[in-house]
Amino acid sequence: MTEPVFRRLALIGIGLIGSSVARIAGERGDLAGEVVANARSQATLDRVMELGIADRVELDPAKAVAGADCVMLCAPVGTYEALAQAIAPHLAPGCVLTDVGSTKQSVIRDVGPHVPAGVHFVPGHPLAGTEYSGPDAGFTTLFQGRWTLLTPPPGTDAGAVEKVAELWRRCGSMIEVMEPGHHDRVLAIVSHLPHLLAFTICGTADALEDESRQQVLKFAASGFRDFTRIAASDPVMWRDIFLNNREALLEMLQRFTEDAQAMARAVRWGDPEYIEHRIQQGRAIRKSLIELKQA
Amino acid sequence: MTEPVFRRLALIGIGLIGSSVARIAGERGDLAGEVVANARSQATLDRVMELGIADRVELDPAKAVAGADCVMLCAPVGTYEALAQAIAPHLAPGCVLTDVGSTKQSVIRDVGPHVPAGVHFVPGHPLAGTEYSGPDAGFTTLFQGRWTLLTPPPGTDAGAVEKVAELWRRCGSMIEVMEPGHHDRVLAIVSHLPHLLAFTICGTADALEDESRQQVLKFAASGFRDFTRIAASDPVMWRDIFLNNREALLEMLQRFTEDAQAMARAVRWGDPEYIEHRIQQGRAIRKSLIELKQA
Repeated sequence: MTEPVFRRLALIGIGLIGSSVARIAGERGDLAGEVVANARSQATLDRVMELGIADRVELDPAKAVAGADCVMLCAPVGTYEALAQAIAPHLAPGCVLTDVGSTKQSVIRDVGPHVPAGVHFVPGHPLAGTEYSGPDAGFTTLFQGRWTLLTPPPGTDAGAVEKVAELWRRCGSMIEVMEPGHHDRVLAIVSHLPHLLAFTICGTADALEDESRQQVLKFAASGFRDFTRIAASDPVMWRDIFLNNREALLEMLQRFTEDAQAMARAVRWGDPEYIEHRIQQGRAIRKSLIELKQA
Repeated sequence: MTEPVFRRLALIGIGLIGSSVARIAGERGDLAGEVVANARSQATLDRVMELGIADRVELDPAKAVAGADCVMLCAPVGTYEALAQAIAPHLAPGCVLTDVGSTKQSVIRDVGPHVPAGVHFVPGHPLAGTEYSGPDAGFTTLFQGRWTLLTPPPGTDAGAVEKVAELWRRCGSMIEVMEPGHHDRVLAIVSHLPHLLAFTICGTADALEDESRQQVLKFAASGFRDFTRIAASDPVMWRDIFLNNREALLEMLQRFTEDAQAMARAVRWGDPEYIEHRIQQGRAIRKSLIELKQA
């Protein structure tokens, strides 16, 4: 069998992403010799042991990272600063510290200053997910054919970056290295803004007078149904993403709002050519996605 | 075998909805004794004959409706007024005239005045669809478990309403009779606004500077991907829907925009409780949909 990438992998947080990595590690055997799982609650850790997806569980993150040669933060990004403070003194020399958060500038801002000398910090983000969360939600094919973006700060040890890349490749993922600000801008439009819109339209529907609200639920047509699926995602995780990608998200929302107002104006004043042209643009984007196999 | 609901069914327009009805009629044999298909182009009608989903095709809508005891308009709603003018003199006495358009006040406004005495006008709307269009897109299970809303004007013959209801029931649909203004308001939030938002975000992404645009396509994460699927729907059909449900659509967009701005404000000024509360609302709506089996 191929040598594992890491001797001991500590997963700090064991929800959809963390438990998928744990399952893949268990199935393949070549990600890590040993998997240690940490979560905020003992109930989650009990469930992890029931599921049999980690070799060991630790409620104290400091104990979870001790002796690990890879520590992967898989918790909501709003918890990273406190986690980094708690684990920093316990990270083994030469250890690789990585993460899976959806915002990368904030992670570098919150975690970077706490990383001890001799520890390699390789921020990462697998572009994969479903609307489900928790240790039961993970599955081994989650990352297959999907991209993982790595945003190592300048000067990061190339060997450490390659090890993280290799771990994700063995999970079925493709790798791209990217500048963190650029990552945050791209993610703002492909993921964070769509989620904000989906959460918002559910709120707008929820605020309708009672009869209409009931009928919205009863007659949810395909457009709204798809939005509610997106909107079923984990609230704390998404709250933290919005707050930690503020600049890029607000800018994309502003652009979107201008575009929506232009569409509203065309509807109000009856401009069929404009409306049709904008709809055609959407179809063109969809066609490109299908060609790039990201549809 | 059960007696067919109609002797001769004329489908004016044979895209996703029309060709699905035609396929069900062919498979079951108890919707109509004969199915006549009309389309704007001979190429479409040639394809319909190749597919073998109609008994007869007619390029002239006046000829298509002659002798039919049910005429179903399945074209974009913007074509209805001209179609109604063209077919009105050729509708057989006692014929049932129905439609499948997504806007119901506009249909009553555009078609109603042309309906000859002795012809029964029963506007309808099956809440079913995919992002595909054209005669190849239809399939026999499209309407199963989905609602069809009927909005007959006051005084419509109850027998005619029942026949249209029975046709849709035999397509697998559930029936609800609704006031047309109420229909348009509910559809504005569950279908028309989600489509407008999906088309708009695709346009916003398309307008990004070139490097980001390429990366949006490359790294389309799940939120955006779902939006592009919605946005792949037929441009002319959706253009017509937006223009023909203007008041309700603009009002729902206005409410949505206010809610999105409130979310933006909470992101800008860092109000985690507000953001989390709004996200929780989305999850609650999703949960209700799953309970109502509309998810």
